Amino acid sequence: MTPESAAKAAALIFSPRDSKAAVEGGDWFAPKFDKDALITAVATDAVTGEVLMVAYMNEESLRLTLTLGEAVYFSRSRKELWHKGATSGHVQKVVEILTDCDQDALVLRVHQLGAGACHTGYRTCFYRRTAVAGTAVKLETILTDKAYDPAKVYGAKS
Amino acid sequence: MTPESAAKAAALIFSPRDSKAAVEGGDWFAPKFDKDALITAVATDAVTGEVLMVAYMNEESLRLTLTLGEAVYFSRSRKELWHKGATSGHVQKVVEILTDCDQDALVLRVHQLGAGACHTGYRTCFYRRTAVAGTAVKLETILTDKAYDPAKVYGAKS
Repeated sequence: MTPESAAKAAALIFSPRDSKAAVEGGDWFAPKFDKDALITAVATDAVTGEVLMVAYMNEESLRLTLTLGEAVYFSRSRKELWHKGATSGHVQKVVEILTDCDQDALVLRVHQLGAGACHTGYRTCFYRRTAVAGTAVKLETILTDKAYDPAKVYGAKS
Repeated sequence: MTPESAAKAAALIFSPRDSKAAVEGGDWFAPKFDKDALITAVATDAVTGEVLMVAYMNEESLRLTLTLGEAVYFSRSRKELWHKGATSGHVQKVVEILTDCDQDALVLRVHQLGAGACHTGYRTCFYRRTAVAGTAVKLETILTDKAYDPAKVYGAKS
């Protein structure tokens, strides 16, 4: 991103969280970050509505997402900004950002560039469902085909 | 819930998280709880796919959800189990539970009983979207009608 984008992102004005009524019914964006300074962000396919992935944003990544129109998350494991698609080319173009009643979660409706959101090759990270068999909780894969070959995008180690 | 349900829930076997390959590609459920012992759970409408709400589960609530077939969350604010709909009657009947590649998030595909998932009266908690106007980040309400009257369900204080 350019210095201009960073400056524009930093200038965006969020609202303080004045009252429950204002947060739930008002027309100002007053996102609530948790004690780790993160907010949960659910990316969904803007056309099908399918949940693609669940990730997290810090304030800087949320500001950059609003400015760039592309999803920028915060990687909890790497502890750094994560411009989705910077490595794979699988950028998420943001159509709109929804927030919930208490403004502590976001839904990003996106156009997923490339074939899939998941580093495993599936179009969504949610390719398995639980299946209880007696006392065992197993998983069933519900997507039959991968959308792309992750070895070709990320290299052999993926 | 009955003592029998609690015992059945406690007996369910989750897998240890042996390796990245097993977590991402295996057929055992090995949920990852964060340092607060919670996992993110996204409830979606099983018919339309719409995201209804984002909540959190501890291990006990996840086990109860798997056993009862109804969404049981853990309230971060009240620090207690939260059987969704216990007060409002707006129970979420679970059709299936999906997990993601690294098994640290869940999608619950549900049939939402009653008219809505949100305590504000809307069918989903995500009834607003962000709208950037200059440097101000405002919110636009995208649902025109509430699905039910929260005062009638929760009393006047809601």
